[in-house]
Amino acid sequence: MSAIEALIGEFGRLPGIGRKTAQRLTYHLLKGRPEEARRLSAAIDRVLAEVQPCDECGNLSSEAPCEYCRNSKRDAALICVVEEASDITAIEASGRFRGRYHVLGGHLSPLDGVGPDELNIVQLLRRLEDGVSELIIATNPSVEGEATAAYLHRATSRFLDLRVTRLARGLPVGGDLEYADGVTIAEAFSGRREM
Amino acid sequence: MSAIEALIGEFGRLPGIGRKTAQRLTYHLLKGRPEEARRLSAAIDRVLAEVQPCDECGNLSSEAPCEYCRNSKRDAALICVVEEASDITAIEASGRFRGRYHVLGGHLSPLDGVGPDELNIVQLLRRLEDGVSELIIATNPSVEGEATAAYLHRATSRFLDLRVTRLARGLPVGGDLEYADGVTIAEAFSGRREM
Repeated sequence: MSAIEALIGEFGRLPGIGRKTAQRLTYHLLKGRPEEARRLSAAIDRVLAEVQPCDECGNLSSEAPCEYCRNSKRDAALICVVEEASDITAIEASGRFRGRYHVLGGHLSPLDGVGPDELNIVQLLRRLEDGVSELIIATNPSVEGEATAAYLHRATSRFLDLRVTRLARGLPVGGDLEYADGVTIAEAFSGRREM
Repeated sequence: MSAIEALIGEFGRLPGIGRKTAQRLTYHLLKGRPEEARRLSAAIDRVLAEVQPCDECGNLSSEAPCEYCRNSKRDAALICVVEEASDITAIEASGRFRGRYHVLGGHLSPLDGVGPDELNIVQLLRRLEDGVSELIIATNPSVEGEATAAYLHRATSRFLDLRVTRLARGLPVGGDLEYADGVTIAEAFSGRREM
């Protein structure tokens, strides 16, 4: 296989990148300055060499422990559980959470062979022994995310003083009621608040 | 900058890839097996090391001359001029052209400082000395592509026996008349054929 075909193939393996886009990216790198393409390949090599899951929370980071676990200004009594390390970026962008995180590494999915043992749950329970007051479950609002949240709720029931919460469901801000699905509208009704 | 941020930045520099997609790609590589990420970086390094413009036609290829210029089964009397090497893939997919190619490396664009000398035109004129019977101009159907086609038509007027043609404009197959723009419909009318 030619070098060009090989690179088109590798780009095409990435999620959301079809053959046409893979071609476009390949020819973009070929047309540009070689340094730019080299920077991309070096950046890939660097994450492979440096990035590890944080022993404490499972977040992916070049540092050990990760920036959130090391930051003493962040409230260690609040833990927000997410499915993936990439979810942390989205939550940080909201600017509304100043506690610590815990990354499960996925959601329960029996059909794919993902049970509780495949997720980073034992380590979460260990962290909860240590003066945590609230566990905010921020798994995805999907069937699997809900099942995972329900499992975590049961698994943490022995921590009698722990408050376990779940992010609110409702209409997305800036969205249009007309385009919201029925389940979301139903959630928005049952979670309605006084004005 | 952290290794993760650096890779998100490099992906985000690619055309059509915004910050969210760059994040998704980065975490995809981090979550997958390291070999997969390493294959992508190695494929980038390989095109940088191997791929060169063909001396004959300007196509990007790991071989010199490129696969089309080396293939004696392809009619050397027919040359199809394209703007970019990536256009060749699209034409080959049509299966309708069995001649050789010539890659200009762009289109005329005086505002961006791209004049005839910046394109691979001198070499095209040299090739035309050598028994070429038809030059098919397949520059893009854009303003710049048309201007480049018109320039090539004039520049090749001294080859009295050379037939110079341009790919037909009209309605894209599988398209919907309702969504075609006025200029395309006008071209489709003026190029209409007997049934």
